[in-house]
Amino acid sequence: MNHSPKSFASDNNAPVHKRVLQAISDVNQGDATSYGDDVYTLETEQHFKALFGKDVKVFLMLTGTGANATSLAHITQPYHAIVSAETAHLENDECGAPEKITSCKLITLPAPDAKIRPEQLPPLMESRGFQHHAQPKVVSITQSTELGTVYKPGEIKQIASFAHDNDLYLHMDGARIANAAASLDISLAEMVTYTGVDVLSFGATKNGAMAAEAVVFLEPSLGQHFEYTRKQNMQLTSKMRYVSAQFNALFTNDLWLHNARHANAMAKRLAEGIQDINNITITQPVESNAVFARLPLAAIEKLQRQYSFYVWDKSNNEVRWMTAYHTTIQDVDEFIAAIKDAVQQV
Amino acid sequence: MNHSPKSFASDNNAPVHKRVLQAISDVNQGDATSYGDDVYTLETEQHFKALFGKDVKVFLMLTGTGANATSLAHITQPYHAIVSAETAHLENDECGAPEKITSCKLITLPAPDAKIRPEQLPPLMESRGFQHHAQPKVVSITQSTELGTVYKPGEIKQIASFAHDNDLYLHMDGARIANAAASLDISLAEMVTYTGVDVLSFGATKNGAMAAEAVVFLEPSLGQHFEYTRKQNMQLTSKMRYVSAQFNALFTNDLWLHNARHANAMAKRLAEGIQDINNITITQPVESNAVFARLPLAAIEKLQRQYSFYVWDKSNNEVRWMTAYHTTIQDVDEFIAAIKDAVQQV
Amino acid sequence: MNHSPKSFASDNNAPVHKRVLQAISDVNQGDATSYGDDVYTLETEQHFKALFGKDVKVFLMLTGTGANATSLAHITQPYHAIVSAETAHLENDECGAPEKITSCKLITLPAPDAKIRPEQLPPLMESRGFQHHAQPKVVSITQSTELGTVYKPGEIKQIASFAHDNDLYLHMDGARIANAAASLDISLAEMVTYTGVDVLSFGATKNGAMAAEAVVFLEPSLGQHFEYTRKQNMQLTSKMRYVSAQFNALFTNDLWLHNARHANAMAKRLAEGIQDINNITITQPVESNAVFARLPLAAIEKLQRQYSFYVWDKSNNEVRWMTAYHTTIQDVDEFIAAIKDAVQQV
Amino acid sequence: MNHSPKSFASDNNAPVHKRVLQAISDVNQGDATSYGDDVYTLETEQHFKALFGKDVKVFLMLTGTGANATSLAHITQPYHAIVSAETAHLENDECGAPEKITSCKLITLPAPDAKIRPEQLPPLMESRGFQHHAQPKVVSITQSTELGTVYKPGEIKQIASFAHDNDLYLHMDGARIANAAASLDISLAEMVTYTGVDVLSFGATKNGAMAAEAVVFLEPSLGQHFEYTRKQNMQLTSKMRYVSAQFNALFTNDLWLHNARHANAMAKRLAEGIQDINNITITQPVESNAVFARLPLAAIEKLQRQYSFYVWDKSNNEVRWMTAYHTTIQDVDEFIAAIKDAVQQV
Repeated sequence: MNHSPKSFASDNNAPVHKRVLQAISDVNQGDATSYGDDVYTLETEQHFKALFGKDVKVFLMLTGTGANATSLAHITQPYHAIVSAETAHLENDECGAPEKITSCKLITLPAPDAKIRPEQLPPLMESRGFQHHAQPKVVSITQSTELGTVYKPGEIKQIASFAHDNDLYLHMDGARIANAAASLDISLAEMVTYTGVDVLSFGATKNGAMAAEAVVFLEPSLGQHFEYTRKQNMQLTSKMRYVSAQFNALFTNDLWLHNARHANAMAKRLAEGIQDINNITITQPVESNAVFARLPLAAIEKLQRQYSFYVWDKSNNEVRWMTAYHTTIQDVDEFIAAIKDAVQQV
Repeated sequence: MNHSPKSFASDNNAPVHKRVLQAISDVNQGDATSYGDDVYTLETEQHFKALFGKDVKVFLMLTGTGANATSLAHITQPYHAIVSAETAHLENDECGAPEKITSCKLITLPAPDAKIRPEQLPPLMESRGFQHHAQPKVVSITQSTELGTVYKPGEIKQIASFAHDNDLYLHMDGARIANAAASLDISLAEMVTYTGVDVLSFGATKNGAMAAEAVVFLEPSLGQHFEYTRKQNMQLTSKMRYVSAQFNALFTNDLWLHNARHANAMAKRLAEGIQDINNITITQPVESNAVFARLPLAAIEKLQRQYSFYVWDKSNNEVRWMTAYHTTIQDVDEFIAAIKDAVQQV
Repeated sequence: MNHSPKSFASDNNAPVHKRVLQAISDVNQGDATSYGDDVYTLETEQHFKALFGKDVKVFLMLTGTGANATSLAHITQPYHAIVSAETAHLENDECGAPEKITSCKLITLPAPDAKIRPEQLPPLMESRGFQHHAQPKVVSITQSTELGTVYKPGEIKQIASFAHDNDLYLHMDGARIANAAASLDISLAEMVTYTGVDVLSFGATKNGAMAAEAVVFLEPSLGQHFEYTRKQNMQLTSKMRYVSAQFNALFTNDLWLHNARHANAMAKRLAEGIQDINNITITQPVESNAVFARLPLAAIEKLQRQYSFYVWDKSNNEVRWMTAYHTTIQDVDEFIAAIKDAVQQV
Repeated sequence: MNHSPKSFASDNNAPVHKRVLQAISDVNQGDATSYGDDVYTLETEQHFKALFGKDVKVFLMLTGTGANATSLAHITQPYHAIVSAETAHLENDECGAPEKITSCKLITLPAPDAKIRPEQLPPLMESRGFQHHAQPKVVSITQSTELGTVYKPGEIKQIASFAHDNDLYLHMDGARIANAAASLDISLAEMVTYTGVDVLSFGATKNGAMAAEAVVFLEPSLGQHFEYTRKQNMQLTSKMRYVSAQFNALFTNDLWLHNARHANAMAKRLAEGIQDINNITITQPVESNAVFARLPLAAIEKLQRQYSFYVWDKSNNEVRWMTAYHTTIQDVDEFIAAIKDAVQQV
């Protein structure tokens, strides 16, 4: 399936934003030192410091799975356990990369809305000091979550507080961090730095970049020597200026934020357009750029002949519809009409 | 150091070829299915099949270290050993990625010209069947080598023959495979497929791409299930069309070959321009796009104030000068003049 | 806590059976080739072949965790997943050894009685062929289970049948395999070989040995080259005759079976002795050498001042009482009396 | 080959010392808490503290490879490199366990007498801070060495001093540490603690035990949390009292030292008995319990029909003859006679 004009399958299917592409083209002049020792990468680092705080340590990465698994490996020992919601990307969609790269056990918590609740954490501490049990060391949360929900700053603070009181780190998988920041309408620092996140996987690829991810150590001492971990785990690109250019474009004039706001608005428009349709139930709060809904199987099948999207839970006829920075009002409205049409026919 | 107009440090410092950049721009239209299920990636696979044989299995990758470590992991068990020349990139310049990703022992062979000789291999077989010893399973050669030399097809065949007679695989690190093919003036199939290579790391990044590497299984059964190994090792990019576009540009009208021929010609021009200078000794045959030379330390230091390049062996005052697809005749001639000037002053 | 005369904490707390100790002493004469190339180890292998079938491949190991993690590593690739009951020792009590040694993801299934039911397996196959998901490759069952229950041969056959129809292996964690065989009153071959188990961790340590475990490949081709996996994973002992001697003692005159029958009988006696006590609920079928029961917290605390045992589930006041080959009728009867006394006082 | 009355193949072929066996028997009474929480293990820890210093942290292990690989894993990160002599057991005879368990690169140094010289270390520091290179973190020396030589305390101090000045740890593989201490005639503390060793693999198996190894952290903070590393790496035995009993026997009345002195004396007797034989060259200083010698191939072959021993270097007709605690004067004298006879006949 290519060039489907109306994919609601994934924000990964979107093209690169034209200003990102232009930035790549703009840096394509002459030689530049490889492996990140170039002015563009320096500029990217400054952008991150401006957004997250002047002390953060930033490392550019190639994939979201790479950012997650590699950062987690750097802050753990093999006998540690990493705790996440059962819905976490690192549990479900990384083909065992966290286990292989960290050697740690993954422990998951039930999470109907993909969010860990602070009261789920204390029971995990019972294994502390018992040599037969992998020792919890990191709590990883996803922001925005895999179900399109968003942690409020207070919720993150509560988790961070428990974590830090119990010798745990707080990792945030920010594959869609821009959508979360846009949703909460607060700064990245307010959402991440001031809430107590220790390490962040910052994703730009789903927000208009080509392939641009980063690991941000909010607690900079945790990032010491991470250059070796990145290299050993095959995430160090030689011509780094082309990754940096993508970030620089997105961080110029808040393009990252505009992109995310637009994607979120399109999801909201979609949700509002279908909320009153009989036989459709929106199953999660629409807080970022995803709509989860249940509808009759026959309607799903009819729709999938026109539109690309995932059935999230077969047993339940639940689907996931993603919007992206380039989804248009017209796309959404046509899709709403198609949904109505499909549901009415069944 | 940025935009040094005259870097002879690395072909990694070069910009992206304009036709590669154009190709990236050309595919930036509308949605495309992520993770390689798109028409551009299909086209890339067809190019590889045309060049290496219709049965090969091809997987696009993000870094050269990723291509090496991941392909080696796929064809070994942890108790195996991987044999290479002592000069190999995977031994020296991958921060232990092969050990971490494969769990194997690396065994190196002395190689003054960076090439393994077939007669070095039989003694390694003495550990066969002895449970205390890591069991050799792969011989890895680099083509062109880290010292700019090139294996002749007959040499590869001899190594492959020994390997296959002894239950070993032959891996080729082709980070600069185009330069080798250009140097030998034979087809990729003649150099790789017909000589008995089992697995190839195919590099395009040093030859005008932005970030485009591939693993090619010449013996396709070896590549079965490699999609999981790639994903688990964090080398699966979501928006793969942009990697494929780079390959497609390079494979169109033999751009890859023209680029490599030009880089090689520039190295040859450089070598010829300095071969008669007193106090300079060219230390390796100039068979691809590198010139290794010894010259007085004072001359090195003077030159490095103008030009970026690496001292390869401090103990020896040996330097490495790399050319790339975009090195011009004028660049080379000016560099020759600067070298002469630097040497004469000491 | 030492030499507690009446531990019901674990069959690991028991001393070594006197005939096992005698056997160790008996082989302590003169030199013997190290690393298993000795007559005693050959004899052990013959015992295993007599019990499980002449084609099995057997490797002596040092710990139960070593037998589990190492055998699983040998039959998997890192991108595989290993499926077990949520109660499995390898999930809960091996400090992440399976993850570190195999690099695989562990997937657990709900199991109130610690037994996997065949109908739980088909949904796991939905991830097959999806490159983002770790691929299920092994189902591991424990026999007897961590909750003292026992799979019937027909149950194992059903699981094996599904496994083999779906390109999965069936692993059995037999840390207490003797107790299971004694419970079912069938031969080891009937319970393991003929039911379709592919790989077995055979434990003798909990059944009267000092430290004697084994990996048995029922499907011998799976065990090819396991000698290297054992050595690389640090489970090859040099003076192997002393491990072999333990097995040989246990396999002589069915000592292994007598030990297990006795331990099981003691658990049954204990269960029968307490089943009518008010305020005590036996929570699992008593099918091997463990009794799980709920009783008032005050009674637990009183009992623990006299006897060593584990509280299994704090939230529930559920305890585990283990018997062993050396538990006497008097031990049990005194313990029953103590329990009655403790419960009546609350 | 079994019960060869006259093996000179390995100190691993020797039986268990009768006092060690008696000690195992003596602790075989009643229940004891498993996993090391017993009085015998506490006693063992006290012995180690008495010998090495009151602050050391001690962990009992099951194999020498386990002690080496696991302790090295605990004090390194995967991107580190471990430096040893090219002759080191961990490089040659552990089937890649160090690579698998630590994920580190192994770097070896030429060592004709199996000893690292301090002046070999500074060049390794050139890779410091270069992200493409595995970063040296540990120097591992073997005492006594694989070639029977012994580091003098001053030599160890020099290596330790360089190590500590350069943020490296010093690990000692003490598989035959007793032979070294006996050879130098100094205390273990003088040889290990006061020379600056950070971590020690202490071997007892080759010195009269059945299977008893330990990791000793001389710098105790390095040993923090090692209980998890031991468990995850499958080296935690359940019935630990039987390992502790072995150590306790060896540490009582200096049995460990008497055993080692005797083995050393037998090697010296052997060396003196053959040093004047024509056609035999002793190739290494005989400083512990090994004699390395070159002799005619025909003589080797004749001898091997009567005696078990290893040809160390085929290319060179160099053999290794090991003595052990139980080698008798008569054994040695008969062996000397056999050697003379074999050599004279050729």
